Amino acid sequence: MKFDCPLPFNDNEKINLAHGGGGRRMARLIQEIILPHFPDCDVENIHDGAILEFGSERLAFTTDSFVVTPQFFPGGNIGDLAINGTLNDLAMCGAQPLYLSCAFILEEGYSMESFRQVLVSMGDAATSAGVGLITGDTKVVDHGKGDGIFITTTGIGHVMPGAMIDPRRVQSGDVVIINGPVGDHGMAIMCQRENLAIQGELASDTRTLHEETAAIINQFGEDIHCLRDMTRGGLATVMNEIAQTANATIHLDEGSIPVNAPTKSACELLGIDPLYVANEGKLAIFAAAGIGEDILETLRKTNRLNRPVIIGRVGNLEGPRVILRGVLGGSRILDLLSGEQLPRIC
Amino acid sequence: MKFDCPLPFNDNEKINLAHGGGGRRMARLIQEIILPHFPDCDVENIHDGAILEFGSERLAFTTDSFVVTPQFFPGGNIGDLAINGTLNDLAMCGAQPLYLSCAFILEEGYSMESFRQVLVSMGDAATSAGVGLITGDTKVVDHGKGDGIFITTTGIGHVMPGAMIDPRRVQSGDVVIINGPVGDHGMAIMCQRENLAIQGELASDTRTLHEETAAIINQFGEDIHCLRDMTRGGLATVMNEIAQTANATIHLDEGSIPVNAPTKSACELLGIDPLYVANEGKLAIFAAAGIGEDILETLRKTNRLNRPVIIGRVGNLEGPRVILRGVLGGSRILDLLSGEQLPRIC
Repeated sequence: MKFDCPLPFNDNEKINLAHGGGGRRMARLIQEIILPHFPDCDVENIHDGAILEFGSERLAFTTDSFVVTPQFFPGGNIGDLAINGTLNDLAMCGAQPLYLSCAFILEEGYSMESFRQVLVSMGDAATSAGVGLITGDTKVVDHGKGDGIFITTTGIGHVMPGAMIDPRRVQSGDVVIINGPVGDHGMAIMCQRENLAIQGELASDTRTLHEETAAIINQFGEDIHCLRDMTRGGLATVMNEIAQTANATIHLDEGSIPVNAPTKSACELLGIDPLYVANEGKLAIFAAAGIGEDILETLRKTNRLNRPVIIGRVGNLEGPRVILRGVLGGSRILDLLSGEQLPRIC
Repeated sequence: MKFDCPLPFNDNEKINLAHGGGGRRMARLIQEIILPHFPDCDVENIHDGAILEFGSERLAFTTDSFVVTPQFFPGGNIGDLAINGTLNDLAMCGAQPLYLSCAFILEEGYSMESFRQVLVSMGDAATSAGVGLITGDTKVVDHGKGDGIFITTTGIGHVMPGAMIDPRRVQSGDVVIINGPVGDHGMAIMCQRENLAIQGELASDTRTLHEETAAIINQFGEDIHCLRDMTRGGLATVMNEIAQTANATIHLDEGSIPVNAPTKSACELLGIDPLYVANEGKLAIFAAAGIGEDILETLRKTNRLNRPVIIGRVGNLEGPRVILRGVLGGSRILDLLSGEQLPRIC
C-alpha cells in the first residue's frame, strides 16, 4: 500500500478553510484545480497581479476579495483593507496605482450604518492614495447566505518605466529587507475575534506601500529584483514562494526579524508563530548585494512608519528552501504550512 | 404629517434584497449611500463600466459579482455567466474584451466536483471568446457564511477607435433595436429554483455579444449612440435608465417585443412581467434614424442566434419617461420597479 500526504484531491472532496489559508493546501487548489482551466493565467504565481501590454505601456492588473472577520478591528476595517490591499498588490508589480473598481456582496439584514462606515473608510483610503474608485457593482444575498459584507477590489496601475520586478531575478548574494515588525495585522484580528485583552497597543498595520516602492524603484531601478507584501501566510510563506520561483536558498536571521511586544505576547498566548501571521503594511524586498543600507535609508526617509531591517540574504542556488538561523545559533528549515493558521484574516 | 414613499434611508435601516434588485431601491442605494464616498465614480451611470485614458488608448474597465442561485441552470451555470456577463459589459462600452480577472469566495463544505464544473465552464467561455483569464484570488469562508460559490469577474477591454457609445448621445428620432426575445434567463432561473415544469425548452440565453457590437460599430461608427445589455431589471429598467440619462422620452411598441412561448407561460404562471425579467444575451441598441433595417441585417449575419427587431423610437425631448403602446392600442408609462422582482438572478 502507498500513502500520499497530504491526501490527493479527488472529486468527492469538499472545500475547507485550509484552501483559503495561504499554505500548501491553497497552493495545491490553485495549481491543480483552478489553473488547468485558465491557461493564460500567470502559472508561476510570479506576482500578486498580472503585467500586460496595453498600447505602448505596461499595465498591472490585480484583484482580491476581502472576507475578513470581524469587519471592524483596531487599526482599520474591511473597507480600508480592501483598498490598501489591492493598491499594495499593484505596488508589488512595480506599478503606480491609477484606478480601482469595487464589488460588494451584501447580506440581507446588514446594518446600513456599518455599510456607511465601511464606505467612509474606502473613500478616505482611495483619496489619500490619490486613486479613483471608478466603477463598481452591488449584489445582495439572502440572510444566512453571506456574512454582512464581502468586498472585491480590482486595481489597474501603470508599471514604472524603470521597474524590473520579477522573483526569477532573485539571485545569489541578494539582500533581503523588510520594512518593519511582522504579525501585527493578523494578531490584531485574532485578539479582536477572541476578545483577548493584550497589554499595549495591538493594531492592524494596514496602509499603502506604493510611495515606498516608487522611491526605491526610482532610486535603484533594476537593482530591485523582487517586491512582495507579506499578507496571507506572513513572511514565512512569502519567502517560500519566492524561493520556489527563483529556485533559490534564502537564509534568514531570526534575531533580526522584529516583532512588536504586544504581537509577541498574543502569539505566545495563542501558540502562533509570528513569521506565519499576515501583515498588511509590510513588504519584503530582494535587491542586489551592496545597496542594502541605501535602501534602508530611502525607506526611512519615505515614511517614518518604516523601521526597515536587513533580515537575510540569498545563498548559492542549492535548491528552493528557506533556512532560518535561530537566536541561539541553530538553523532550521522554515517550511510552508500545510493548512490554515488564521482563517479569514483578509 | 408628511409621508415619503419609498421611505427615505436612515441609519437604522438594514440592507434588504430589494437593494440588489436593479430597481428604484438599488438606484437609491447607489446614488445616496455609495457614490457620495466615491467622487471619481461615473455618477451618471453612463455605462456598465468605466472608460479611461491609458497611455494613448481608451481602456474600458468593468466589474461584477455573481451570486446567482441555483448555480446550475438550463443553459449555463454561475461560471459561464460570470465570464459572459463581464465580457458583455465591456462590449456595451464599445470595447473589445482583452483580459479578465476572477475572484472566488468559496464556502467551506462546497463540493470540489461542482467547483470543477464551474471552472470548466469558465475556461470554455473565456477561450471561445478569445480572452485571457490572467489573474485571480481565492478566499474560503466558514460553512453558513456563504452560499457555495460567489464569483467576481473584472474585465479590461480596448475601446474601438470608431466607438462613441454614450447614452447622452441618444436623440430624438433614434431607433430602438433589441437582438431577440426577452426574459429567458430570469425565467429559466426562476423555474429551476421553484421546480416548475414548463412545456417547451426554457433555458438561459447567456452568451457573449462583443462580436455583434464590433460588427455594428465597424459598420456604423458614431451612428451607434448607445448599447446596453438588458440584465438585472430587464428591458424596462434599461429603457428607464437611458431615458433618465438622455433626458429623453422613449416610445416602445409592446406588440413588437418578442417573448418566447415557454418564457411567456412561466411569466403568466408566476405573475411576472417579462419586460422586467433579466436577460444575459440580449442587448438594446439606440442608433441614428434611418439605419435601423441595416443594423438588423448586420445582426442577423453576425450570429444566427440574433432575431433582431425594431421595438420603438426616441420621441421629442419631453422629459425622461418610457411610454409603452399596448397591443390593444392604449399607452401606459413603463416605470422602474421599486424593489425586487427576482432576487439573485445573476
